[in-house]
Amino acid sequence: MTRGRFITLEGGEGAGKSTQLRALAAALRAQGVEVVETREPGGSEGAEAIRALLLTGAADRWSPRAEALLFAAARADHIEKTIHPALHRGAWVLSDRFLDSSRAYQGMGELTDADILTLHRIGSADFLPDRTFFLTLPEGEAQQRAWVRDGDAADRIGGRDAAFHADVAAAFARFADQEPARIRAIDASGKPEAVTARLVAALQDLLP
Amino acid sequence: MTRGRFITLEGGEGAGKSTQLRALAAALRAQGVEVVETREPGGSEGAEAIRALLLTGAADRWSPRAEALLFAAARADHIEKTIHPALHRGAWVLSDRFLDSSRAYQGMGELTDADILTLHRIGSADFLPDRTFFLTLPEGEAQQRAWVRDGDAADRIGGRDAAFHADVAAAFARFADQEPARIRAIDASGKPEAVTARLVAALQDLLP
Repeated sequence: MTRGRFITLEGGEGAGKSTQLRALAAALRAQGVEVVETREPGGSEGAEAIRALLLTGAADRWSPRAEALLFAAARADHIEKTIHPALHRGAWVLSDRFLDSSRAYQGMGELTDADILTLHRIGSADFLPDRTFFLTLPEGEAQQRAWVRDGDAADRIGGRDAAFHADVAAAFARFADQEPARIRAIDASGKPEAVTARLVAALQDLLP
Repeated sequence: MTRGRFITLEGGEGAGKSTQLRALAAALRAQGVEVVETREPGGSEGAEAIRALLLTGAADRWSPRAEALLFAAARADHIEKTIHPALHRGAWVLSDRFLDSSRAYQGMGELTDADILTLHRIGSADFLPDRTFFLTLPEGEAQQRAWVRDGDAADRIGGRDAAFHADVAAAFARFADQEPARIRAIDASGKPEAVTARLVAALQDLLP
């Protein structure tokens, strides 16, 4: 049995990660690949319980340090209970957000990127995706999509200002520069079908 | 305003930590000191929610790595929301278990003591107690006390075998050797009042 591939989708609010994840899963299934769709924080029973702690309550419920530890704990559980078993039986796993979101969201304030990577080493033995797609949009377009979708229901993670989201996008771009073999920036503008085609083309080298 | 002191009680099951914490708090209050009694995991709203995740469910609900991260997250919240505010208003804080329990229970298997200390640096900026009392009992006496108390209700943390508890006691003894100024081994055998008197004597240098 060949081990499956682990693919993550990253990007700011409104870049279309959820839509593209579903479309990419469908495209892979059409090629005969078993696909598990998952997300972070969450993706396993324990990690979903931690997600509930993270996404409910006041905006200052958790300090940045406690939040980073909770994300790392949820990720450790997600990998152990969901991702590893699926990969070992030969399935591909597609995750809406993963480590690079923690690096971008929690690793550029009180904590550093090195801190987030250290938590990942201790929690998950440095386990990394085979490929990470960073969905990019011109700034105005991403904000418009996020506003249309969120309305007034922005949660603790989404409800932040434009400068914060620009910093996050810059962080993702840095990660892509640092690890070009793993992280690929994908233009997420235009029709969803065109974006999906770009994603499928960008993982042909990983297919059997 | 003089900053208060942070005192932690550590030791294996049945060493009398909870009883001695209450008695030590009463002795300090009799000297006019404001005292906050707390415990780990828990001691703040967020940390108690994490405690509920840690102490319920099957014994293998969390991997050792996820468990260590959850303990570190709870500790970060406990320190920020409960311990630091109390110390800054001049109160003393007594905690039933703290970092050294994580070092002894989570730091001697899949994770190392260095890993646990790294989580504490990232989560809580290396914040340490002013004094830690390690309550020691002859092995047979500790086991008898734990059995009397727990009955069949041993929880995920308590329900482990004698060899495991001996390893934990050995780990606490090592920590006391490494940091003799902070960690003091206290003989917890004999009458509770005599043990409390030993504890009070061993923190006279910290009183105003």
